[in-house]
Amino acid sequence: MHPPIDFWFEFGSNYSYLSVMRIEALASRAQVALRWKPFLLGPIFRELGWQNSPFNEQKEKGEYVWRDMARRAAKYGVPFTRPSNFPRRALLPLRVALFGAEQPWMGEYCRRIMLRNWSQDAEIDNDETVLAALGGLVLDPAAVLHAAQGEDNKAALRAQTEEARRLGIFGAPSFMVQGELFWGDDRLEDALEYAQSLA
Amino acid sequence: MHPPIDFWFEFGSNYSYLSVMRIEALASRAQVALRWKPFLLGPIFRELGWQNSPFNEQKEKGEYVWRDMARRAAKYGVPFTRPSNFPRRALLPLRVALFGAEQPWMGEYCRRIMLRNWSQDAEIDNDETVLAALGGLVLDPAAVLHAAQGEDNKAALRAQTEEARRLGIFGAPSFMVQGELFWGDDRLEDALEYAQSLA
Repeated sequence: MHPPIDFWFEFGSNYSYLSVMRIEALASRAQVALRWKPFLLGPIFRELGWQNSPFNEQKEKGEYVWRDMARRAAKYGVPFTRPSNFPRRALLPLRVALFGAEQPWMGEYCRRIMLRNWSQDAEIDNDETVLAALGGLVLDPAAVLHAAQGEDNKAALRAQTEEARRLGIFGAPSFMVQGELFWGDDRLEDALEYAQSLA
Repeated sequence: MHPPIDFWFEFGSNYSYLSVMRIEALASRAQVALRWKPFLLGPIFRELGWQNSPFNEQKEKGEYVWRDMARRAAKYGVPFTRPSNFPRRALLPLRVALFGAEQPWMGEYCRRIMLRNWSQDAEIDNDETVLAALGGLVLDPAAVLHAAQGEDNKAALRAQTEEARRLGIFGAPSFMVQGELFWGDDRLEDALEYAQSLA
């Protein structure tokens, strides 16, 4: 058995979008177990001294990133529209993601939320979006939404974000395989190969 | 005929090291003409507001980068030792690189300088290193060293750095194919594929 891959991601993170769209199929093909690790990127960036996405703080890099995103999305066959608001708040959908992280609907839920942000250029941090994304995936979307907003689950998302910090994660997406950190959608294949190289 | 690939690099830049070691063979195989564009990263970073490498300015990312470098180098079969001094000054070898950019010895000269920095963990901004790197590649290394330090060539390196800035280049390595910018060693293959896609 290979060790699992831990997938640390944020719905507001553009390169996380590419990984959310790709990882379930790639991990399955590689026969590597996938563990979804949603977390809040904002507190991490603030601790690193940034008040905004580094892509917004550096003009040149910021402009480049959207070209790179368009090219990478095309390469992977993933739809992409440059969002009119970046980075988008994602607290509520992240709470639901944490709540559902081990559920069979997790992958499809995450892809739906991501497509709304990165393909439909729409806000995601609201009840309607989350309920729509859960539609057809769970019997009672409203009950899931309610549970995700419980104090325990809110605290669990904060704790997961602190765990990311403790692990040395400084951006998203990040992949952790038996203590080895890989950062960026363009390291996803490397992370899976590393997991495959371990017994 | 495909358009050429312009390769913007710095001897002090770690990811430039990987590209210098890989690009000549990859471009040749892709039948894409390669144009070497050495430039000074220091002035670019200072204009972006950094006094040092961003890898030194951000502790978490800095630590990660050396793990990533070791893994990438192993993946490519390129030797790598984490340098005890980073980033290393590279003004003199860059002047020689600019002087020789269109010479047949350019690729091998650059690889030798890079190996000294990133495999042998040695300083590179001195006469001895540059003369040794030119040894066997040119008839008269001392004459090349002298010419590279002429006022014209010094001014040309400053001008090339300003050209990088004008093109929107904010880091190294960068690849430019008919106005399309690709940033990072991990985009080298994409840049070559893009060149191949153009008539």
